[in-house]
Amino acid sequence: MSLKNILLRTINQKNKYINLAATAVKINQEQYNYREQNRQYRKTVATALFSSVLIGTVLAEKSKNESKGKDKNKDDNICEAGERRPDLPTYRAEEVSKHDSVESFWVIYKNGVYDVTSFLPSHPGGDQIMNAGGLSIEPFWNVYGMHKTKDICALLESYRIGNLHEDDMMDHSGDELWVKEPSRDKRLIVKTSKPFNAEIPAKLQVEHFDTPNELFYVRQHMPVPELDSSQHRVRVTIENGETVTREFSLQQLDMFPRTQVRAALMCAGNRRSEMNEVKPVKGISWQGGAISNAVWEGVLLVDVLRACGVDNTDVAGKHVIFTGSDIDATGVNFSTSIPLEQALNPSNRILLATHMNGAVLPPDHGHPLRAVVPGAPAVRSVKWLESITISKDESSSHWHQKDYRSFNASKTWETADFATAPPIYSLPVTSAICDPANGDTVVAKNGVVEIRGYAYSGGGAKILRVDISPDCGETWVQAEEMQTDDAPPQQHYSWTLWTARIPVRKEQKEIELWAKATDSNFNTQPEKFDDIWNIRGLLSNAYHRIKVQIKH
Amino acid sequence: MSLKNILLRTINQKNKYINLAATAVKINQEQYNYREQNRQYRKTVATALFSSVLIGTVLAEKSKNESKGKDKNKDDNICEAGERRPDLPTYRAEEVSKHDSVESFWVIYKNGVYDVTSFLPSHPGGDQIMNAGGLSIEPFWNVYGMHKTKDICALLESYRIGNLHEDDMMDHSGDELWVKEPSRDKRLIVKTSKPFNAEIPAKLQVEHFDTPNELFYVRQHMPVPELDSSQHRVRVTIENGETVTREFSLQQLDMFPRTQVRAALMCAGNRRSEMNEVKPVKGISWQGGAISNAVWEGVLLVDVLRACGVDNTDVAGKHVIFTGSDIDATGVNFSTSIPLEQALNPSNRILLATHMNGAVLPPDHGHPLRAVVPGAPAVRSVKWLESITISKDESSSHWHQKDYRSFNASKTWETADFATAPPIYSLPVTSAICDPANGDTVVAKNGVVEIRGYAYSGGGAKILRVDISPDCGETWVQAEEMQTDDAPPQQHYSWTLWTARIPVRKEQKEIELWAKATDSNFNTQPEKFDDIWNIRGLLSNAYHRIKVQIKH
Repeated sequence: MSLKNILLRTINQKNKYINLAATAVKINQEQYNYREQNRQYRKTVATALFSSVLIGTVLAEKSKNESKGKDKNKDDNICEAGERRPDLPTYRAEEVSKHDSVESFWVIYKNGVYDVTSFLPSHPGGDQIMNAGGLSIEPFWNVYGMHKTKDICALLESYRIGNLHEDDMMDHSGDELWVKEPSRDKRLIVKTSKPFNAEIPAKLQVEHFDTPNELFYVRQHMPVPELDSSQHRVRVTIENGETVTREFSLQQLDMFPRTQVRAALMCAGNRRSEMNEVKPVKGISWQGGAISNAVWEGVLLVDVLRACGVDNTDVAGKHVIFTGSDIDATGVNFSTSIPLEQALNPSNRILLATHMNGAVLPPDHGHPLRAVVPGAPAVRSVKWLESITISKDESSSHWHQKDYRSFNASKTWETADFATAPPIYSLPVTSAICDPANGDTVVAKNGVVEIRGYAYSGGGAKILRVDISPDCGETWVQAEEMQTDDAPPQQHYSWTLWTARIPVRKEQKEIELWAKATDSNFNTQPEKFDDIWNIRGLLSNAYHRIKVQIKH
Repeated sequence: MSLKNILLRTINQKNKYINLAATAVKINQEQYNYREQNRQYRKTVATALFSSVLIGTVLAEKSKNESKGKDKNKDDNICEAGERRPDLPTYRAEEVSKHDSVESFWVIYKNGVYDVTSFLPSHPGGDQIMNAGGLSIEPFWNVYGMHKTKDICALLESYRIGNLHEDDMMDHSGDELWVKEPSRDKRLIVKTSKPFNAEIPAKLQVEHFDTPNELFYVRQHMPVPELDSSQHRVRVTIENGETVTREFSLQQLDMFPRTQVRAALMCAGNRRSEMNEVKPVKGISWQGGAISNAVWEGVLLVDVLRACGVDNTDVAGKHVIFTGSDIDATGVNFSTSIPLEQALNPSNRILLATHMNGAVLPPDHGHPLRAVVPGAPAVRSVKWLESITISKDESSSHWHQKDYRSFNASKTWETADFATAPPIYSLPVTSAICDPANGDTVVAKNGVVEIRGYAYSGGGAKILRVDISPDCGETWVQAEEMQTDDAPPQQHYSWTLWTARIPVRKEQKEIELWAKATDSNFNTQPEKFDDIWNIRGLLSNAYHRIKVQIKH
């Protein structure tokens, strides 16, 4: 098992952990199953070693280069760090392991030893780096493959102080973590390959009202787990003084009425690349392609919770924690939560879904079971769902506590207090022009240029209007065609595709186009990114602006 | 009865209507009650004469003058038009009555005859003026008293062509329409006195989390009806092939569980005066005082509808029409509607309310019964509620069809299509600084200026953050104190009062402050009014900006 291997390797790095490791490996190999393994390791070893790291972050500079770059589809993961350097001294692993504090912080990468003490404050993943003090960073980088870029490796190399003694070298290649990744459609625009994060090309977004499964954008935090639908169980745990637990196979879930919900899922970081132009932010440099639309099928979460005895008493302030089968470098499962009252409101149409656009869920989208929380940022729609816990506390995971929260434009990584910032459980109104793209040449027919795009708003709000300005706000042209679905008021979870026809002048060679949408709460998009800028680049919903050339 | 008098007077203006009028007045005076009178007259006479007029509109210029003016609390209703002018010819009423088309359009005001043909396209109330062709405009102006300003009377007088023959003069004083108006708190800032529209002063808004009833802003479309709570009935009519009707006294409504909802009500035109600075709009020139907060008590509309046989079948696309007892110059009751699916969603907490902050509803707020539609523009919370109709159509009233809809910034009164514009059933996020006011001098204590205000978002969204910029967007200071209530997620209908502490420099003499709020859907306010400008001045929710002097 790859997990065991990672843990063992990491454990072996430090002698002081050997006893713990010995306890851990005693577990009968025949008996443990995937889930029990996670749990046992987490308890005994993993949490003692390190917690999670660098979730989905890339250096903003890299994003910038990528968005300008020539070859967007290729992950730039050739890392030349860690070659043996005869000009530098050699250190034993034991010596390196002593440098694990903010006063002196060394790490190992392949043959290289690095003193990154001065880099600690500027690590994009914050304090998570502290878990790697005195150790090899390879096990971490194997899971968070977005580190393996030329830029980051060059940065690492600039902190080089020596070589690791040859007797202490270990194989951290970790390739087996990724060998079971599903095959993906070549048309997806890969942002990072390990973990796999890829957006749908803009022009394909507007080709289909329900995005074909193979084109649905992909956002992974970790390797894709391989699950057997006939063996899969989801456990419902209710912590209420005493703890009550029930388990459901997929067949058992089918005793609840099956239902369909048409819903777009959008990453809270969609359109981050535009916010990044104002001032660098941390996170995958999504253009507008981290949103897609589908018809999801499954059973209603509220039905399952009711059957497990959850009623309307004592619900205020409680949470529903969703846990997936995907695990990080330390054996911690992905997890996040939503408020219980939100989960119990039937209008929210929250699903335990097995199907997507009529087909069984693909591995990249949570096979065989995922939560679908319509109107919420997609991170709450936990894939590979293996447990649901009703708790008085929010999920304690890194992903819930240290990410997907919002701050004002003046908060820095030093001043932002994640503990008091409210988690993002819904999304603001947004829109994007998908066709033409920025820089395209468009043909005017009878003095009119046709443009197409999407619009979306969270929390069940419907898009009522999309307005396009062809003259930097002087005038606004309302999109005429709005493709949407007929969900009831306040339960509109689908996106809207729109077409607008913009009159252009005979002699006009270039046009700048601005798009903004208005939703059924009559919220509109902010004009610019400056005032909604935030350290994490989330909720990036200002006007979408492009420039195109006109051919008459 | 004042209504009868108005109608009779108007009827008498045109001989051709005399027969209809005779039919109308035959109705046994002892038998008719308030409601039957409305209905009978509407059928036989009123609709033939004129429909509704100029709802709540004032010339934008007037608003501007008012907001700059010295005496904001006094209605400027001294009209000097209509004096006899010996230099002009005399016309008989019969001659005037022939000029009732767009080719030639005359009206009468007191002694004066006016040819306003060229004014027709610029009438703020649009086509409604056509109902007064060849007639006296006094009955209309008696109901829509906001016409009676020096500016408008001078404008009218500029169209003067003659005098009305003395034998055709009629008394249209109509004072009795207004004699039963309730007394009002002197601290309210009166925008128009007939009908009565008044806002709460900003500094009093932030003094109380639940606004005292006597300070709750008042928005009337017509005179306040005088209703007897012991006699009052609300009729529920379900049009579903056959029509089913049930009536409830207030005592009978009490068979449903009574409940309380804390909700702010805000006029969709709140903060219109700021949008008016960009380009004149039509409507009462509200500052930020057309919002107040209260605890409403009554029974849930959904319970009453269920008891009347409304279930979940065949609800899509249907509407709930609320009709009040207040009537316009033509005998038409105030009415508007909301979608039935919105009404049936228990999360929306829609009330038939009898109490406000623990007291019986005051006359200005709908005594003895009003709808309260939390999260929606206050116009949907129909006062003096006398009927509820489930219908496949929206309310056909002027107020529903020709007002409270939204357009983009490029639509004019000529191009705006009210029929296809969606009605406003929810409100976007907004905020305002209440204390200090623009132009005030504030005292800095220990280098800090304290400011207070409100924030609100419709559709049940909670305010999560209020940010203040003391330097035109360079930096943002998050408000520290947020007074709110603990409603469940997505059911947050109360406003939020906030306090922020802004550091100022020692030598700083002046400061410009910007306020913006973020709600639980993470929608924020637009930066400026230009791009959300609309002909009716609705949904005016851009940043609130003030300048104040600093005393150290």
